[in-house]
Amino acid sequence: MDWKTERIKKKMKQANNIIPQDFHVDRSLRGQLKGHKPLLLWFIGLSGSGKSTIANLVERSLFEEGIHTYTLDGDNIRCGLNDDLGFSEKERTENLRRTAEVAKLFLDSGTVVLASFITPKETDRTQIKNIVGKENYIEIFINTSFEECEKRDIKGLYKKARAGKIENFTGVDSPFEAPENADIEIRTEQQTKEESAKQILKYILPKLKAEVHE
Amino acid sequence: MDWKTERIKKKMKQANNIIPQDFHVDRSLRGQLKGHKPLLLWFIGLSGSGKSTIANLVERSLFEEGIHTYTLDGDNIRCGLNDDLGFSEKERTENLRRTAEVAKLFLDSGTVVLASFITPKETDRTQIKNIVGKENYIEIFINTSFEECEKRDIKGLYKKARAGKIENFTGVDSPFEAPENADIEIRTEQQTKEESAKQILKYILPKLKAEVHE
Repeated sequence: MDWKTERIKKKMKQANNIIPQDFHVDRSLRGQLKGHKPLLLWFIGLSGSGKSTIANLVERSLFEEGIHTYTLDGDNIRCGLNDDLGFSEKERTENLRRTAEVAKLFLDSGTVVLASFITPKETDRTQIKNIVGKENYIEIFINTSFEECEKRDIKGLYKKARAGKIENFTGVDSPFEAPENADIEIRTEQQTKEESAKQILKYILPKLKAEVHE
Repeated sequence: MDWKTERIKKKMKQANNIIPQDFHVDRSLRGQLKGHKPLLLWFIGLSGSGKSTIANLVERSLFEEGIHTYTLDGDNIRCGLNDDLGFSEKERTENLRRTAEVAKLFLDSGTVVLASFITPKETDRTQIKNIVGKENYIEIFINTSFEECEKRDIKGLYKKARAGKIENFTGVDSPFEAPENADIEIRTEQQTKEESAKQILKYILPKLKAEVHE
């Protein structure tokens, strides 16, 4: 690991950033180690809209740029931290509140977080933004029409919801408030997933590289 | 950030690790980017035992080695994710369960996590170990006697607890079960904080450097 030690010491010196005797490892130092700014990319959209697919493509490109990322989604949040929560309106809000708090910790660690959640309510989105700080929050609306999502129905969930086998399913018996002020809007019916990922990267890469002194 | 991209591509090549077209950024790839193994260092001990002081010293040394770290403690967990929890026995257990789940996500991201919590109950410690996987869990017992902690009383909490102004205070009106199987035991009354940090680093550094192919 010696090459890394040297690299950091060199970077510290370059930045005229002498480490004081009693320093704590804080957000700024972690940013220097990682070489980029942290940011929360919050992907919003109906089930089957393509949130995870596009988030994965974005994460791959970020990885190839040497950017430290982590993904939060239903898979790793609902099965662990929030496995005590159901799907009532109150519990869905608590699910998102806790996720935002976890994202905040990851941002503090210097990591770029990709979060994929339906996030159907504007009040929840406002809470998320308030928790992490609006300067860290990029709202990405994966805008795929309900009809198209239902047609795709990759996981067979729409069929189950129509049959009354799933309750509180967004778009069927639970409302989806389309974001009106998203930083990025992706229309998956008009472009490929690769084009969508590129659209996002073009917007975020300059932000990630800003404020880092190497 | 081009030097980083090149570095990663070089590392991938060295490891004969061709990136497939449809790869996902997973724990293994994140480990290659960070250049070390993740690990959870869980610091246990009474209030005032020196957990945070020693954890900070360890984190500083890890940072200087280029190791990506993050600290979880009452300050960032109780004020955010768990600000809905009080200090009853049940809520303290839930506080630790959620913290372990967050630690698990950080481990998955490739980060070395330093967690400082009194963690007075063996059942809670067992749950933490089960959540994160015992191969990822290093239990560090900061063994400072109750008498010494009460004498130090840096935050004035023991005085308040003795006066009945704080309830469920570990060591006063709530039990502390000393860990019997800690991986590392630190006796702060017999050595300096720097010696304590060194003792921990000697144990963990070989584990962090293992399994990484550069």
